[in-house]
Amino acid sequence: MRDTRVCRSIPLFGRCETMGCMSDSQGFDDFYAIIPAGGTGTRLWPLSRSSRPKFLYDLVGQGSTLIQSTFARLEAVTGAGHIVVSAGWRHVDEIRRQLPGLRADQLFAEPVQRDSMAAIALATAVLARRHGEGIIVGSFAADHVIRGRESFAQAVSEAVATARAGYVTTIGIAASRPSTAFGYIHQGRSLGADIPGASRAHLVERFVEKPDSSTAQAFLSTGEYRWNAGMFVMRAKVLLDYLHDSMPSFFEAISHIADAYMQDEHAVDEAMSRYWTGLEKIAFDYAVAEPLSAAGGVAMVPGDFGWDDIGDFNSVAALLPSANERNMKILGDSDLVAYLDSAGDVVVPSAGRTIALLGVNDMVVVDTPDALLLAPRARSQEVKSMVSYLQESGHDDLL
Amino acid sequence: MRDTRVCRSIPLFGRCETMGCMSDSQGFDDFYAIIPAGGTGTRLWPLSRSSRPKFLYDLVGQGSTLIQSTFARLEAVTGAGHIVVSAGWRHVDEIRRQLPGLRADQLFAEPVQRDSMAAIALATAVLARRHGEGIIVGSFAADHVIRGRESFAQAVSEAVATARAGYVTTIGIAASRPSTAFGYIHQGRSLGADIPGASRAHLVERFVEKPDSSTAQAFLSTGEYRWNAGMFVMRAKVLLDYLHDSMPSFFEAISHIADAYMQDEHAVDEAMSRYWTGLEKIAFDYAVAEPLSAAGGVAMVPGDFGWDDIGDFNSVAALLPSANERNMKILGDSDLVAYLDSAGDVVVPSAGRTIALLGVNDMVVVDTPDALLLAPRARSQEVKSMVSYLQESGHDDLL
Repeated sequence: MRDTRVCRSIPLFGRCETMGCMSDSQGFDDFYAIIPAGGTGTRLWPLSRSSRPKFLYDLVGQGSTLIQSTFARLEAVTGAGHIVVSAGWRHVDEIRRQLPGLRADQLFAEPVQRDSMAAIALATAVLARRHGEGIIVGSFAADHVIRGRESFAQAVSEAVATARAGYVTTIGIAASRPSTAFGYIHQGRSLGADIPGASRAHLVERFVEKPDSSTAQAFLSTGEYRWNAGMFVMRAKVLLDYLHDSMPSFFEAISHIADAYMQDEHAVDEAMSRYWTGLEKIAFDYAVAEPLSAAGGVAMVPGDFGWDDIGDFNSVAALLPSANERNMKILGDSDLVAYLDSAGDVVVPSAGRTIALLGVNDMVVVDTPDALLLAPRARSQEVKSMVSYLQESGHDDLL
Repeated sequence: MRDTRVCRSIPLFGRCETMGCMSDSQGFDDFYAIIPAGGTGTRLWPLSRSSRPKFLYDLVGQGSTLIQSTFARLEAVTGAGHIVVSAGWRHVDEIRRQLPGLRADQLFAEPVQRDSMAAIALATAVLARRHGEGIIVGSFAADHVIRGRESFAQAVSEAVATARAGYVTTIGIAASRPSTAFGYIHQGRSLGADIPGASRAHLVERFVEKPDSSTAQAFLSTGEYRWNAGMFVMRAKVLLDYLHDSMPSFFEAISHIADAYMQDEHAVDEAMSRYWTGLEKIAFDYAVAEPLSAAGGVAMVPGDFGWDDIGDFNSVAALLPSANERNMKILGDSDLVAYLDSAGDVVVPSAGRTIALLGVNDMVVVDTPDALLLAPRARSQEVKSMVSYLQESGHDDLL
């Protein structure tokens, strides 16, 4: 039985009424960032593979991989020691290589993938055991691109302030176009007057799944919708209490594993094999954010930075500078691409071979050592179908 | 000074009047086939390279390379011992490997490429020295596809009969469509009554370069035009006499080299380095067939076999069986091609990698270990421009 005396903010969901919830610090001293490095990015196949997911790549030619950029961005906010990463065990070595500033105890290896709820819950439970339940945790995907570090830090600061008040707080991204590739957040009443340091915070009215085009258009015209970037900041205790009450068996399994992390590797392995595999595969959004928002427990602060989840090659293209006046987008060595009378293509020459395009327009061309993908840019989202097809037809070696 | 007493058919160009011209044999005993294995096939880049031209490939999935098929076809007509090949020295080893039935003295190595006139003239001059000027020679490109061996043998038989009568004789291919990719032959009056064994022979009125579409259409409607497949059959003496009279310095250079072939390798190397490089680069068509046809010296017999010069990937596609009901044409291992919602593509997976096509229609996709080509099928002829572009931009290593 959990001790819920200190601050039982659930089911109040409002500003925490008891002093015990309120840290003296208004900075980031008690803030910990969790990077769930899960998904494979099947729509970026054959560049992104289950053996090497997209967060391990520099997909926008910024000189660092996505997880390196994510780490650096959070490091600037809260320091390297306050960041943990949860990832599939197959990727642990490469993540260590890419993030030399990450200590061994800051990296959680998942034996099988169990979606973001499990990753965030375990990291939160372990951090709470190490640093106390009063800490604030924030979850930030490993494979998003963000432009504008100061704006990002400002938004996190407001989210932390809002989280201190007991809210599960998301950062809503200014919707610059009626995208049908993102989920949306409908903002409710302002919380700004109540929360020091987060004057722009609002309650979240509801989360909306990827809309169709006209719905997205309608959202934008109201000025009340922002993109859901899946960033969530909250007090560890708020999350753990919620899980304890709403998903008791999930909570119990996570608690066993987190306890094992306070012992030794052997205990971790044992607890993982016993409890992790049985965990429900569910995203944080569905498990916590949506139900809690319906109860008035979720807040949103605005993020004014550039953001993209690079969901497909069209997103990659949008983030790459044009190689020429014909809007050619090349991810990699542009000397490897020879084109005549071609325009608007997205080309990834990652196999060291020359790619010659003659009269080829608006196509995605991804060249890797063992697989080549061709598709019109307009069908970038369907690359997922190709991956399913390859899986069904026994080409697991390529996935 | 050449001895022209035996049969000075030029400038008469008609049926040879002197008995010395007429071999007793009406068969193929005195017939020798020359295979000039020259051109690179730049419109089939990156499959065809200067280092490995198209005749060394099986471009239509028939189980043998183009030069192997050409050799086998001629062997059935005249025997392996009556065939010679003229090719760039870089390709000699591979030709020997592909044609184990070819003796060393049946292969002429060209130090640099000097087009078909030089290749045919040298082979003819050497064969005449070996077997006498009374022989009939025929030139057949190494990289054409022919379907119907019996029809081919029949056409060659008629061409040989017509050549015996003193004509430079070409085999005209039934024009099955108004192609703009081939040259045409306009037939003149019938020679059938005069030539035993070649009742369908006609004089050639003129040769026409690749026409535009409406001209080609008009040609077909007359029934008097056939495709020029560049096959020429003639008495060795007729050709050598013509060269002697019309291209004396060319004739002299060829004679020096041919003389050297009657000595030893050293003499050949010396003569080649001294005389070959200076030879004019000219096709047999321009040097002999066109001027001679204007003077009434060229005849045509019909070829009723299927023929294609596989000039580009569209030609390759036309000759390949469809891999499925969506008219996918795959040259190579079809297991390497995964396609969803794609149709009409020509795919050459020659690098062992999987090629995944999603929503890709009517494209040429040629995958080789160091270069990949993408182009719409409709622009197959322009692949040549890509090769020029690569050459200009310093990518000689890919050509």
